[in-house]
Amino acid sequence: MSSRDVAQLLDLTDPLAHFRDQFSIGNPDQIYLDGNSLGRLPQKTIELLTEVVGEQWGNGLVGGWKGWYDLPSRLGAKVGQIIGGDSDEVLVCDSTSVNLFKLTVAALQARPGRHKILTDDANFPSDVYVSTGVAKLVGEIEVEVVSISGEFADVAERIIERIDANTALVSLSHAHFKSGYLYDLERITRASHDAGALSLWDLSHSVGAVPIDLRSAGADFAIGCTYKYLNGGPGAPAFLYVRREIQDGVFSPIWGWFGQRDPFEFNLTYTPQAGIGRFLAGTPPILSMSAIEPGVDMLLDAGMKAIRTKSVAQTAFLIDMADQFLANFGIRVISPRSDWQRGSHVSLSHPSAWQIAQALIHEANVIPDFRAPDVLRLGITPLSTTYMELVEAVERLLRILESNSFLNYPEAKSTVT
Amino acid sequence: MSSRDVAQLLDLTDPLAHFRDQFSIGNPDQIYLDGNSLGRLPQKTIELLTEVVGEQWGNGLVGGWKGWYDLPSRLGAKVGQIIGGDSDEVLVCDSTSVNLFKLTVAALQARPGRHKILTDDANFPSDVYVSTGVAKLVGEIEVEVVSISGEFADVAERIIERIDANTALVSLSHAHFKSGYLYDLERITRASHDAGALSLWDLSHSVGAVPIDLRSAGADFAIGCTYKYLNGGPGAPAFLYVRREIQDGVFSPIWGWFGQRDPFEFNLTYTPQAGIGRFLAGTPPILSMSAIEPGVDMLLDAGMKAIRTKSVAQTAFLIDMADQFLANFGIRVISPRSDWQRGSHVSLSHPSAWQIAQALIHEANVIPDFRAPDVLRLGITPLSTTYMELVEAVERLLRILESNSFLNYPEAKSTVT
Repeated sequence: MSSRDVAQLLDLTDPLAHFRDQFSIGNPDQIYLDGNSLGRLPQKTIELLTEVVGEQWGNGLVGGWKGWYDLPSRLGAKVGQIIGGDSDEVLVCDSTSVNLFKLTVAALQARPGRHKILTDDANFPSDVYVSTGVAKLVGEIEVEVVSISGEFADVAERIIERIDANTALVSLSHAHFKSGYLYDLERITRASHDAGALSLWDLSHSVGAVPIDLRSAGADFAIGCTYKYLNGGPGAPAFLYVRREIQDGVFSPIWGWFGQRDPFEFNLTYTPQAGIGRFLAGTPPILSMSAIEPGVDMLLDAGMKAIRTKSVAQTAFLIDMADQFLANFGIRVISPRSDWQRGSHVSLSHPSAWQIAQALIHEANVIPDFRAPDVLRLGITPLSTTYMELVEAVERLLRILESNSFLNYPEAKSTVT
Repeated sequence: MSSRDVAQLLDLTDPLAHFRDQFSIGNPDQIYLDGNSLGRLPQKTIELLTEVVGEQWGNGLVGGWKGWYDLPSRLGAKVGQIIGGDSDEVLVCDSTSVNLFKLTVAALQARPGRHKILTDDANFPSDVYVSTGVAKLVGEIEVEVVSISGEFADVAERIIERIDANTALVSLSHAHFKSGYLYDLERITRASHDAGALSLWDLSHSVGAVPIDLRSAGADFAIGCTYKYLNGGPGAPAFLYVRREIQDGVFSPIWGWFGQRDPFEFNLTYTPQAGIGRFLAGTPPILSMSAIEPGVDMLLDAGMKAIRTKSVAQTAFLIDMADQFLANFGIRVISPRSDWQRGSHVSLSHPSAWQIAQALIHEANVIPDFRAPDVLRLGITPLSTTYMELVEAVERLLRILESNSFLNYPEAKSTVT
């Protein structure tokens, strides 16, 4: 059977196929493989925003707050169902960076006498920036960056052996943003606890693509964005998770209006809300907040198990085609080949990856992502990606490689996506 | 002439009258006097969001970032024109609380060896929370809260006499959120500088209602929200201002992705952007960000001088009617009577203010704001408020007072608005 025949069969029998119709698909010929940078627009979001803007804001005016006030916790509870957090453990608010900042400070203050944040060089760079900034601000804290250098074979061991009695926090990304490698969240969390340290996970590249169960893993903190696999829209507010058992002993460094127990008492003394609410800061951006809900609802409707099943099948199918058709052109699959170690994107390396990405976009109507220096990242979003799209993408890529047309594009070191 | 006749004349000759048609006015019988909590929806915002959601996100997908990436500075430049900041001095990003946090830490670090943040008890409570939280985080910092107790007669003197060689930062609100009293921003800033301290102004209750010239006043830092007189929508991202001359010596404590010089180099070492850009943190919420522009454009179109002229005339007109018709019922005007000391809202005190507010909302279709314990706040937004609405509001209020119908509502201490 040709790849095309296989894809046709798989699409026909795909139990999630109907979800594609629930998205706004502008140009059906365009193959969008960057839903892990910015997820597609759910149709329902268009209706919902019309209602939020015209009705709730335009007509409801300040009275709209009756429905907006609990958005951070109401949406948090839904995101909680995706990441294995209870409704009183998750909030949607602020950006991923700001949430990481709040939780990192909170963790350090909960472990006085310990002076190390442990992370690795595969973490998203700005997570390392935030950790380093917090360390400088709080003082007498070292950020140890374990060198992985893109070799994930024994990554858990290499991280665990650096956790010691001086470690306050182990702060890592669940899925590697370049290769899609999935960390053993449970094992590293357990090792952190064994050493008396807290654990923080950035779920940005796994949430909505991979089943996650923070509670059963015992994770202390987590953060993540909602604009990738959650389809929340550009720059949609992020989420944060704090394990219930530790909530009353940790505090946000940003003593904001929404984290105060009785904001409308207009008292000058700050008393943090009981529980997770203390991690709210200022007034949340309601339009961007509201837009998160339809995408999350779709994921809950589809179920993470079915999504993961399709994601694994699709990434495996794509890797198989890459081996078969693209390897001859110097393209190498750098994503893990074991399904259980792989998130929902497939990364290919090639010295001219930047030029190939340009040719895909401008000649072939395929939207990949590029990560410096040599990575072409193909993101699969099971709710909208079809198997046939993957075949089409590989065929179009093959034409570019065969014709060498990518050489017409200037070399460049980085890009904005 | 009756108040009604005066109002009719003033509305007829009002050079800003046509701006009201540019807003979405749901129910023309409703008198909205809470635009200083949440500004009205500009018609253009509806169109713009349809374009941003459907076209830029839905069809443009990740390519939309080409137009979104510079939103913080592009919108910042426009807000700058309203507050007297240059285009390289203002950003729109995060919430007011988060921006206050960033700038307060930056100020303390720029004044090592000084251990005091000076504020007053008329500042917005959550501004005091944030200052206190920063003081606790940074350590060895005292927050001195000057007691004003609602008496503003010599407030500048009372604050200035507390600025000393130990003061790192003087952090105040420009317009008092309860009474609308306007602080002498320039004089207090000058006194701060004379003592070697930095100054930070929260413009939330004055921006878009009162002409502000931060540069000529020499202010170092400012923050403010965009959802009141700027009509940016519920929880719309806030702005921050940092005077150009001090930008290279101050740093954000939140080392985020967007504040990094070359984020797409994926370097593990954080290098802050040159200039104001270093105060960005994470990815901004694009839908809520985009919605800010139409309201700001309207203000720029109308001009702050014309807006202020109408605002002063309208608040004076309302105070005049309150004296004439409402004083007999125990209502007292607590806003300053000198025009130059008054922002754009008029506050009335009455022991049953909460109940009166309820009666206004539920019986009279007038939307005021209540501030515990006894303040009824009537916000005037010159771009949409008519003089006749003010007459109508006073007449409807009078009927409630005459009939004592407000006594039918339960007493309550606070409210969510």
